[in-house]
Amino acid sequence: MKLYNVAILGATGVVGKQMMECLLEQDFPLGELKLLASARSAGKTVEFNGQTLTIQEATPEALDGVDILLGAAENDIAERFAPVCREKGVVFVDNSSAFRLDPEVPLVVPEINAQDIAWHTGIIANPNCSTIIGLMAVAPLAAIGGLKRMVVSTYQAASGAGIRGLQELEAQMQAMGRGEQLPEPSAFAYQLCSNLIPQIGGFDEEGYTSEEMKLQNEGRKILHMPNLPIGCTCVRVPVMRSHSESITLEFDDEVTVAAARDALAAAPGVKLVDDPANKVYPMPLDSSDQDLVYVGRIRRDISAPEGSYGLALWCCGDQIRKGAASNAVQIAKLVATTYAR
Amino acid sequence: MKLYNVAILGATGVVGKQMMECLLEQDFPLGELKLLASARSAGKTVEFNGQTLTIQEATPEALDGVDILLGAAENDIAERFAPVCREKGVVFVDNSSAFRLDPEVPLVVPEINAQDIAWHTGIIANPNCSTIIGLMAVAPLAAIGGLKRMVVSTYQAASGAGIRGLQELEAQMQAMGRGEQLPEPSAFAYQLCSNLIPQIGGFDEEGYTSEEMKLQNEGRKILHMPNLPIGCTCVRVPVMRSHSESITLEFDDEVTVAAARDALAAAPGVKLVDDPANKVYPMPLDSSDQDLVYVGRIRRDISAPEGSYGLALWCCGDQIRKGAASNAVQIAKLVATTYAR
Repeated sequence: MKLYNVAILGATGVVGKQMMECLLEQDFPLGELKLLASARSAGKTVEFNGQTLTIQEATPEALDGVDILLGAAENDIAERFAPVCREKGVVFVDNSSAFRLDPEVPLVVPEINAQDIAWHTGIIANPNCSTIIGLMAVAPLAAIGGLKRMVVSTYQAASGAGIRGLQELEAQMQAMGRGEQLPEPSAFAYQLCSNLIPQIGGFDEEGYTSEEMKLQNEGRKILHMPNLPIGCTCVRVPVMRSHSESITLEFDDEVTVAAARDALAAAPGVKLVDDPANKVYPMPLDSSDQDLVYVGRIRRDISAPEGSYGLALWCCGDQIRKGAASNAVQIAKLVATTYAR
Repeated sequence: MKLYNVAILGATGVVGKQMMECLLEQDFPLGELKLLASARSAGKTVEFNGQTLTIQEATPEALDGVDILLGAAENDIAERFAPVCREKGVVFVDNSSAFRLDPEVPLVVPEINAQDIAWHTGIIANPNCSTIIGLMAVAPLAAIGGLKRMVVSTYQAASGAGIRGLQELEAQMQAMGRGEQLPEPSAFAYQLCSNLIPQIGGFDEEGYTSEEMKLQNEGRKILHMPNLPIGCTCVRVPVMRSHSESITLEFDDEVTVAAARDALAAAPGVKLVDDPANKVYPMPLDSSDQDLVYVGRIRRDISAPEGSYGLALWCCGDQIRKGAASNAVQIAKLVATTYAR
């Protein structure tokens, strides 16, 4: 079997570190692994699979000999490295939002649209975390009922703001636990502990945040439904690393609760967690530190308009794993196996 | 001015204590105040407005001489005292859910349907906390646009489970802050700190919780819209005492964002907090410990179906105050003034 040399761009971040674990967990056919980060981190060492790896500064030269670059960096860095990848023939699986809506770039959740990997021209984009987690629950239902509208309210974890977000929430909880003054927020605009912040990203002229528009724009592209109406409200909640979403769906055709449960029970990457009589439903504490998206609270939407059929549901998924690192490594593995050229 | 003798049933609970404060804040024309609770609490003393009041056991005799009973107790206790009130001519303003859907009992949010107090026959029900807070944001809009559907996801504070809920979340945060094992949950079914629990109340056959159905059933009654479709998902979040709600509305007629803002800015009991460019929006930390319901993130619903007009918004309100005690005391004051018989 051919082995692939992989580099991780942004290897010191929460997502970059998780990508290393996922390469092992997913049994990726790995040759050499290069860890790339800013000059500040270069020279630090990291243990990986019994080896000691040294972090290198992310430079164009560092991509020599690399087959696949896993991007876990901000848009500006992704934009800087994309042309280098093309030039050197490196396949760039990028977790930034820089290329997600580029019509030349597939945007992929492997369980939903793996086949889009086939037409990549060097870059494959990994969708936004809340998009992946929500669509994992919705796509198996869209396929059976003629999905015609999605209304989503998110409950997004601190990890979405990276290590600084996690540390800030932790420090606030510690101070609150000790009865001390809470440290000033910096990763978030406001205190997150015992609070909710209804803003993730910047606002557009209509009053939507960039995070809210990602669900619409990326969701349409992944589902191949370019006109699907998707309304979304994104809220940061004081939870560490799993995002949760309350989703209301409208369909052209009737999708019974039983049919929805069957479809979700059979869907790869999804865990049906739906036995309300026994208090069994998805919770972010349970869905953290693993790759499955938990889906439950599936019920008929009692507000669905006449002539429509509606379902309501609730899902939770680990933001760092399926929302970012695991999904990107799944894509990379498909590039190295099923869609190898 | 006539003074009214008031008793509080459940005076040692979070809501009962808040009712005492609200009587003073709202300048209620108060004669004598009796504090009623279980036999266990009888004999304890409480400071109130410079006096020392002794808590009495809640017995039928304790209602002698009382004009208005403020109920802050569970359904079974409310059901036990309702006939006693009728017999003794005491007006019962009850915060339990026992009588809310009784067609003989007005269910009142004073800013919305104060006039329903006029037809009471001895009992007036105080709506559920999440119903009051959501409707404070929705009613001013329903009036102008021909409201035809509500889809709501709630983010409900620990205080909804009373003092035990508040203490449990606090103890969990303290343990987490100290790096200790978290105490076992008892007020909630699961750990709430750094978690979300998508169940408030018990489940019906359709998979809805009692809390979710309250928003539909109580909302329809308060708005005088007996067929309004209302779909709701209720979620407990690790926040102390303000509930928040993400609300999507559909109207027959166009309601512009500007018109919605004007209506909400003019609505009594509402504070318009809606300047996203300056990161100004409702947050539960800000809306706590005061009576106004904060409304913001008002925007066109970009998923509204053709032929409909939609708005999305976000609101927060103190669950103990406007969600319970303040609203009940407002009703009592109207009983003692505008609707005095």
